[in-house]
Amino acid sequence: MLPSVCGQDLTPEQQANTNRTLRIGYVVYEGFTPLDIWGPMELLFQLSYTRNMTLSVISHKKGPVNARSPPHSAGQNPEIGAADYSHMINPQIIATHTFEDAPHLDVIVVPGGAGYFHLIEANNTVMEDFLVRRAPEADYLVSVCIGSVAFARAGLLSGRRATTNKASWKWATNPSHGSNVTWVPSARWVQDGNIWTSSGVAAGIDMMWAFLRHVYGPYLDKLVNSIEYTPHTDPDWDPFSVAFKVPGASQNRTLAKDCDAPLPT
Amino acid sequence: MLPSVCGQDLTPEQQANTNRTLRIGYVVYEGFTPLDIWGPMELLFQLSYTRNMTLSVISHKKGPVNARSPPHSAGQNPEIGAADYSHMINPQIIATHTFEDAPHLDVIVVPGGAGYFHLIEANNTVMEDFLVRRAPEADYLVSVCIGSVAFARAGLLSGRRATTNKASWKWATNPSHGSNVTWVPSARWVQDGNIWTSSGVAAGIDMMWAFLRHVYGPYLDKLVNSIEYTPHTDPDWDPFSVAFKVPGASQNRTLAKDCDAPLPT
Repeated sequence: MLPSVCGQDLTPEQQANTNRTLRIGYVVYEGFTPLDIWGPMELLFQLSYTRNMTLSVISHKKGPVNARSPPHSAGQNPEIGAADYSHMINPQIIATHTFEDAPHLDVIVVPGGAGYFHLIEANNTVMEDFLVRRAPEADYLVSVCIGSVAFARAGLLSGRRATTNKASWKWATNPSHGSNVTWVPSARWVQDGNIWTSSGVAAGIDMMWAFLRHVYGPYLDKLVNSIEYTPHTDPDWDPFSVAFKVPGASQNRTLAKDCDAPLPT
Repeated sequence: MLPSVCGQDLTPEQQANTNRTLRIGYVVYEGFTPLDIWGPMELLFQLSYTRNMTLSVISHKKGPVNARSPPHSAGQNPEIGAADYSHMINPQIIATHTFEDAPHLDVIVVPGGAGYFHLIEANNTVMEDFLVRRAPEADYLVSVCIGSVAFARAGLLSGRRATTNKASWKWATNPSHGSNVTWVPSARWVQDGNIWTSSGVAAGIDMMWAFLRHVYGPYLDKLVNSIEYTPHTDPDWDPFSVAFKVPGASQNRTLAKDCDAPLPT
């Protein structure tokens, strides 16, 4: 019989994860979308009170990393067009490691952000090169928004199902980013083996909650209640695929109220 | 006739805000709750593409500020008990200003976090002193979670309605923090004049969206769609007051699915 926590049985994978220290690496770059990082981070942060984790924040250089993006031309995202972000506000996160000196990682998380258009335009592949090197040693790969495009460009999604931001769908799913990817148009998030990809921005919170229940077991209800968040628990819940008229998404889907309620405590 | 944006009329307040640069000050301290800051920040960040804003991140000292809290004893929060957070992960934000050199602010935002228990225990009132000095010059005061307790302790909620975190309700609403405050038990957020207070953590996102619609006008629908977030738009929607059995909250309230849907684009 498997050990249980709060009366619920754990799979061998969940038991092993509960007993180890999970080394988490957050990849960040100039021009990150704040909530892509800090939404899922909130769940990890709260959970680190009762589960052993380490956190590395990894970027091109150590120290402050701007949320404000460098400019990009229309070439990288014709759906959005050229953009100059220099007038925007600029909250900053601290990077603790570089792509060169990051420690061994069990979980790699890649957010989206307008800065990724700039990196591609500048032919800066340092982040993708890091993913190529480090993905094989990681147990789980997790992306939010167009972070999945970095996975695709690193060749990690070949033969896999994945999803991405719905407003930038056409750009993100262009086969030039990587061949043989099955992009799922109606998905809040997609799990394919050890790769978890979410739709845009806030979807990262819902995916991270599902991911953590997968990793540690389905007894984390108090975690979302304590942050007064009602997660979407259905990976197929994706009204934004309708709102943004994503090709292949069912346009007949209702936009009626349909999110989940808090869990009884 | 009032000027209109996207076919909708603006109030004189909204018109004035649209035409000016809004100087926003985020108060942070060691032991902040990540999403308290970065959830509302996401909306401000996105909106700063089309509205003129500045951002100051203000703390006890400039530079990196830890999300990980110093310890506190049970004395400050008997509902939680004494807590040592030293094993937790520690993402960091950068403070750009101190409580001494912060510029003039039109909006002051105060998040919650376990670090506030430590500040109170240490009799460190630098943040409250700052609020006493600067609140009179600010046009709007905004708090998330137990950030409203800092408003109460600065004397800013006397004669006002406000709300706060539902899991720490008893501690937060203790009259020792400030007299003559009407704490509203069933509220996702409360607006009383120029003071906006939200319930715990994720509630800050919903409040900030309502606040920004108040400040700039009700034409920001694409903002929440672009971050694939379905906001709760009813300030009285508060199933967490039921989940946490907050005194005075209706315990008969349904916990059924009741959040809002994305907005048609």
